[in-house]
Amino acid sequence: MSSLNEYLEKCRVTVDATLDELLPSAKERPGSIHELMRYSMFAGGKRIRPALILAANEACGGSYGNKNACLAAASVEMLHTFSLIHDDLPCMDDDDFRRGRPTAHKAFNEGLAVLGGDALCIFAYEVLARTGNIAVITEMSKALGTSGMIGGQVVDIESEGKPVTLETVKYIHDNKTAALIRASIVIGAQLADADAATIAKLEEYGMAIGLAFQVIDDILDITSTTEVLGKDVGSDQERGKATWPALTSLEESKRYAHELTATAKSAVEFLGDKAVMLVGIADYLENRIV
Amino acid sequence: MSSLNEYLEKCRVTVDATLDELLPSAKERPGSIHELMRYSMFAGGKRIRPALILAANEACGGSYGNKNACLAAASVEMLHTFSLIHDDLPCMDDDDFRRGRPTAHKAFNEGLAVLGGDALCIFAYEVLARTGNIAVITEMSKALGTSGMIGGQVVDIESEGKPVTLETVKYIHDNKTAALIRASIVIGAQLADADAATIAKLEEYGMAIGLAFQVIDDILDITSTTEVLGKDVGSDQERGKATWPALTSLEESKRYAHELTATAKSAVEFLGDKAVMLVGIADYLENRIV
Repeated sequence: MSSLNEYLEKCRVTVDATLDELLPSAKERPGSIHELMRYSMFAGGKRIRPALILAANEACGGSYGNKNACLAAASVEMLHTFSLIHDDLPCMDDDDFRRGRPTAHKAFNEGLAVLGGDALCIFAYEVLARTGNIAVITEMSKALGTSGMIGGQVVDIESEGKPVTLETVKYIHDNKTAALIRASIVIGAQLADADAATIAKLEEYGMAIGLAFQVIDDILDITSTTEVLGKDVGSDQERGKATWPALTSLEESKRYAHELTATAKSAVEFLGDKAVMLVGIADYLENRIV
Repeated sequence: MSSLNEYLEKCRVTVDATLDELLPSAKERPGSIHELMRYSMFAGGKRIRPALILAANEACGGSYGNKNACLAAASVEMLHTFSLIHDDLPCMDDDDFRRGRPTAHKAFNEGLAVLGGDALCIFAYEVLARTGNIAVITEMSKALGTSGMIGGQVVDIESEGKPVTLETVKYIHDNKTAALIRASIVIGAQLADADAATIAKLEEYGMAIGLAFQVIDDILDITSTTEVLGKDVGSDQERGKATWPALTSLEESKRYAHELTATAKSAVEFLGDKAVMLVGIADYLENRIV
């Protein structure tokens, strides 16, 4: 595990340096929105999605931290952050804190938070276009749109406080969370010119860890503390959110997350030694406490 | 003028048909957001930006309504509408009506309006990627981001009710409005494989009509009526918005719009007969009453 932790730390440093280089300075006009973008981007995220791009790229033969992989890694983190900024707005989840700090609309104001999210989304595409690879732009868009992340968010919000089926919870998880994680893996492979069969197996891996990621999130909202997580716990239940443990049980949710992790690991077995970091990340995500 | 009106009508029909074909049906899950996207897209817009893409593409030798030009035309209208939906939100301009109908957050709800705008932005990039042309994705992103449209929106909001210089008003106009109009022209030309010198002249045209467009908008907010415009008039003054007539005069604003229109027309003179629709659009935008 220690080499995995070192790898994740290395990825974090790489993507943070890339982001710092790419993002406009708060001294550039209009300063306020650039400040908000940087405030939100450097809020202590774990950089899991960028690490998945870098690891998938390397597993498919790319050299660690090559330019295009770094651009895509920075881009996916901007897109993830864009979704969090909008998700936290009063008209959505109405969260005042994220990662232990005031959310963007609390630290700045609502209008600027809407525009700052928009700007991160647009800038992420500009950065992604610098890879010169149209396929990754298409992949990212499909993962983010109404047949992906945003579709999941809509159904999530519309299901609050209502009786939902396990099928609906799975739809929400598949789209709201797993789609962007799956896309990160696929994009990493695409930028290493992986063949279609390899991409298909990696996609299977990505979908499985993506689902496991959200199931674990739901579990932690019940079992963890606000201090450890850096955000309110118990909020899912309070809002009547559609979660896996709410519809099954904590035990069943843990079993399911373990099964998904095993599925993910077996999907990348064919890569042999090259899959070591992907296998490590799958285990890490299952066992994480934050 | 009648042939220009026919041309604009032909463009409107073309882009509406493309949008109708591209946009997910409200029957597709999640139905609510697809309904909002269609509600906002088919709200009777004039489709000026798509017409500029089609006209610039044709002026540079593209056949009318070729697939890539249509994709880009649909994309720019989605991006324009995305910006309007977010602009109308209570935390921004707080507008209840747009084109004579309730704005998206009034007809649906605020959360869905935020996500619907996001989804249009993302889908616009997916559609733009179908052209297979990376350069147009870069061009569009630069026009939309903090060095373009969003930058202009931020300074516009931050300048409300404050004393501003003519330089600031020009910054707002250049970015909030002219950048996307300029990009439409450039993208139309790029998709017809125009050379750099041609693109540079068209860019000059686009920037001039883009600025004129906003100056005329400011004038109409003073001289027109709510019935004719389909939105509240006098709202700029009420909000202490930074406008051209507020800092100069109605007369001077009209003179400036006329000068910009002349600049635009002279920039495309070298295209001869091929520029007839671009010249017509410049005149049309100067003389419009809505």
